[in-house]
Amino acid sequence: MAPPAASVDIEGVTDTQAIVIPDALTINGVSARRAKAGKLNGGTAAFTSSDFFKGPSSGKPKAKRWDNYISLESRSRQPSSLKGAAKYLGQPGLISLGGGLPCAENFPIEEITVKVPAPPHFSEQACKESGVVLRSGKYDVSEGKGAYDLSIALNYGLGSGSAQLIRFVTEHTEIVCNPPYEDWHCALSVGSTSSLEQALRIFCERGDYVLSEEYTFASAVETALPLGIKFLGVKMDAEGLIAESMDELLTNWDASAREARKPRVLYTVPSGQNPTGATQGTIRRQAIYKVAQKHDIYIFEDEPYYFLQMQPYTGPNSPPVPAPKTNEEFLKALIPTYLSMDTDGRVMRMDSFSKVIAPGTRVGWVTASEQIIERFVRHNECGVQNPSGISQILLYKILDESWGHDGYLKWLINLRLEYTRRRDVILAACETFLPKNIVSWNPPMAGMFLWMTLDHTRHPSYPTSTPLSIKEIEDEVFLASVGHGVLVSRGSWFTAERSGFEAKELFFRATFAAATEEKMTEAIERFGSAVRGVFGTANGNGVANGNGA
Amino acid sequence: MAPPAASVDIEGVTDTQAIVIPDALTINGVSARRAKAGKLNGGTAAFTSSDFFKGPSSGKPKAKRWDNYISLESRSRQPSSLKGAAKYLGQPGLISLGGGLPCAENFPIEEITVKVPAPPHFSEQACKESGVVLRSGKYDVSEGKGAYDLSIALNYGLGSGSAQLIRFVTEHTEIVCNPPYEDWHCALSVGSTSSLEQALRIFCERGDYVLSEEYTFASAVETALPLGIKFLGVKMDAEGLIAESMDELLTNWDASAREARKPRVLYTVPSGQNPTGATQGTIRRQAIYKVAQKHDIYIFEDEPYYFLQMQPYTGPNSPPVPAPKTNEEFLKALIPTYLSMDTDGRVMRMDSFSKVIAPGTRVGWVTASEQIIERFVRHNECGVQNPSGISQILLYKILDESWGHDGYLKWLINLRLEYTRRRDVILAACETFLPKNIVSWNPPMAGMFLWMTLDHTRHPSYPTSTPLSIKEIEDEVFLASVGHGVLVSRGSWFTAERSGFEAKELFFRATFAAATEEKMTEAIERFGSAVRGVFGTANGNGVANGNGA
Repeated sequence: MAPPAASVDIEGVTDTQAIVIPDALTINGVSARRAKAGKLNGGTAAFTSSDFFKGPSSGKPKAKRWDNYISLESRSRQPSSLKGAAKYLGQPGLISLGGGLPCAENFPIEEITVKVPAPPHFSEQACKESGVVLRSGKYDVSEGKGAYDLSIALNYGLGSGSAQLIRFVTEHTEIVCNPPYEDWHCALSVGSTSSLEQALRIFCERGDYVLSEEYTFASAVETALPLGIKFLGVKMDAEGLIAESMDELLTNWDASAREARKPRVLYTVPSGQNPTGATQGTIRRQAIYKVAQKHDIYIFEDEPYYFLQMQPYTGPNSPPVPAPKTNEEFLKALIPTYLSMDTDGRVMRMDSFSKVIAPGTRVGWVTASEQIIERFVRHNECGVQNPSGISQILLYKILDESWGHDGYLKWLINLRLEYTRRRDVILAACETFLPKNIVSWNPPMAGMFLWMTLDHTRHPSYPTSTPLSIKEIEDEVFLASVGHGVLVSRGSWFTAERSGFEAKELFFRATFAAATEEKMTEAIERFGSAVRGVFGTANGNGVANGNGA
Repeated sequence: MAPPAASVDIEGVTDTQAIVIPDALTINGVSARRAKAGKLNGGTAAFTSSDFFKGPSSGKPKAKRWDNYISLESRSRQPSSLKGAAKYLGQPGLISLGGGLPCAENFPIEEITVKVPAPPHFSEQACKESGVVLRSGKYDVSEGKGAYDLSIALNYGLGSGSAQLIRFVTEHTEIVCNPPYEDWHCALSVGSTSSLEQALRIFCERGDYVLSEEYTFASAVETALPLGIKFLGVKMDAEGLIAESMDELLTNWDASAREARKPRVLYTVPSGQNPTGATQGTIRRQAIYKVAQKHDIYIFEDEPYYFLQMQPYTGPNSPPVPAPKTNEEFLKALIPTYLSMDTDGRVMRMDSFSKVIAPGTRVGWVTASEQIIERFVRHNECGVQNPSGISQILLYKILDESWGHDGYLKWLINLRLEYTRRRDVILAACETFLPKNIVSWNPPMAGMFLWMTLDHTRHPSYPTSTPLSIKEIEDEVFLASVGHGVLVSRGSWFTAERSGFEAKELFFRATFAAATEEKMTEAIERFGSAVRGVFGTANGNGVANGNGA
């Protein structure tokens, strides 16, 4: 892909840099704040809210209201009548025969333990040797052994998620993003695919278009399509979505030609984008935010890979860049989030524990203005309810009770270095084994994907009168790769538009998250052989004569 | 409510009794079948299917196709392109750089243990003394220590749920329901509210009506409404939904007057219905199934309380009915499920672990024909994905590896006796403390709810020229109850129709699942005082002169 475009200046919108925002929460600040707040109210199905855990928001504006953007479906969601009766539960001495909550006595689980590494010794070996065992009992709270227990976690909860985990993610979000408006809230999700589905159903109607990167997360497109919502790709460069292209597309929107109203939503994966691996720099994000302001676009910031931002790539055989020495240094090294520049409250940020702890937790969270989170929670109540209580209590035990914010950030630094190592291995393999006259790539700065461009004009059919189409060459390379014993993903699987899109380049995606270093290197060698086989440079000259990356 | 109507005979439909179905799977049969099947293929994101685990279906017919019933949304769901590539993963020696699955090395969880009671000693005290600790390690499978481990459970899975748990629920479903058609399948869900939401979106369009009991699960109605789907109540008696009323309603359907096409779906909670506590007997179920066949209605069988069927109620101070002595005796005591009589494949049964293990697992499953389950799984892929892997592996450890089907059925017998005890406590309290000239009830046979009818004509305003409406009296009783320190649920919260419904009786719902026996008794005493206060029989004469129950 092309190098990043120069920064843009779009007129007529607020300069988000001009607003003075109170300092972000620090890790020490958390302890002080908690000490002041006193005992956590986190009983069975206890009502909770980020408001209980946020700092003073002096000087921050209120979020914009989105009344005209809320869908028919979402507008019709009413608070549950039964859950509305929860207000009486605060009455001293009241006995409830109201809700159908089973009695904890009949949960056949007495205790759960989990063994985890003790920061900063995170390796599997270190965990075996010096890991800590965290224990959750059924009645820990009433026995004075903690703020969360199995009698609570195993019962029903409210649509926001548990108070215990909402407190942690609210604090974490304030530390990392310090949203610059007053009424931001968090709610737990069962993962970002589900968050996206719910977000689309809050903001879109059948027939709508949603903007996204030209190549995007296939599951996102496939989540939207059955809802009657189409993705429309905005051109990209090495820094991802191009702000000017988005502006142009929106400025020239022809509702009757498109048979659809002007888009109101941008779906973007700003860091380590799937599939291109592109990461939007700070200036790019600011430019895109300005375009969103100009056209009043709501932004879905899907950030599974935010903490998989890696150390700068210094090229093969260069010494690595020293790791961040402190949590503060680490946080400063991260590109600012959309949420951190969201003075309007026009961003729903989607976070997930899938990539930073484990996908099988099926726990994530969303952050947005109170109005939007309230709609999201209403939706949870009539759908997924909330994430597994077992996942929630284990995450709480690990992240809050054992590691704390300090240990969690250290874990994220460790993960950063792990992914840096993996990326460097795949890049070294590419340097060694891919024919550079055919294959080129940009070293990814975040995420788990390497996006490779193949110069289709070098295909042997090209000089002939009947050159193969890009799709046909893609087919040939894909099947040759499988024949050589390596599975890579076809670029065409990731187009934002599922019909009418004419690919101009030939792409393949490889992940460096999954296989071992040895297997990954072998896989790239196999892919190189497959490409050479298809392109007829099986003699290997391509390596020496390469002009790529 | 009225006593049950006589059994119906609806002409012109197949008699489901006439088809000879192979014997149900037995617990011993499971071990033999597993031994024959050999090693479970249950690796990371392994494809699975109930077909791998079902018995021979000799003689069973194939399910009916529902092509004309599938919604626009559900029809548009395509298999994921990336997941389609999974077929290559079977190729020996292939290295995958395809899917973005994180490496288990980076999951910071080394081991999880869970302590559970050892059958048949299920009490909390017994668990403390003789409970067993079940251990899951990260690499148990490759270390030969079991068929499921954390490296699998903590990673992504497929939309069906894990092979390990699908095997267990498929076998359990075959043991309990032995569905009488060939191509039935199971898929995991994140709980039955989510299952219902997905089922509605498979079968209904905006503007449709769904039939249900006249008083029904409020969350079900609230799940449907934002989708533009309205519930329409069918009259009930003490055995729940009345088949003839359903037939009449459908026979006389006037699409233009209703501004909606004839309903295609019945939502029913056959056992211990929420809120009425009504349980449909076998003959009632057969009659309703026949009406469904006559009008080609698809049935959502929502059965969270199926295993909360209790021992027969013998009245106050009578000796209890002896508990089932064996699992076989227990299974025979259960009323047959719709799924067990579903020769057509017109039932989606929704099961959940919420009431039988714990709500916080957020794991349930659905059973239906292959066509419908395939749509359900496509939906999972673009939404909830699958339940928490942590919940899944713990359930597997408990139900499959430790208890087995034998131990699980023993647990369910234990639960049956627990709920019987609780129900008998609330009924004894009602006998003692409620004014029977005002309050009447039917002893529930299943579930967790007692449904009380208050004779509103005995309200002091009745002899006057301005009698209060049922709604107004409901208000008065509800607030008086809260004033007396007890929360009960108002009947009006549970009407299937949210507008235009004219209540003819005054109801309150109390649960006997939640509070301790002492609190429950005290709560009913308080409710009795509140009712007496409102109805002006504070002298307590009602108790002695009662004509209720």
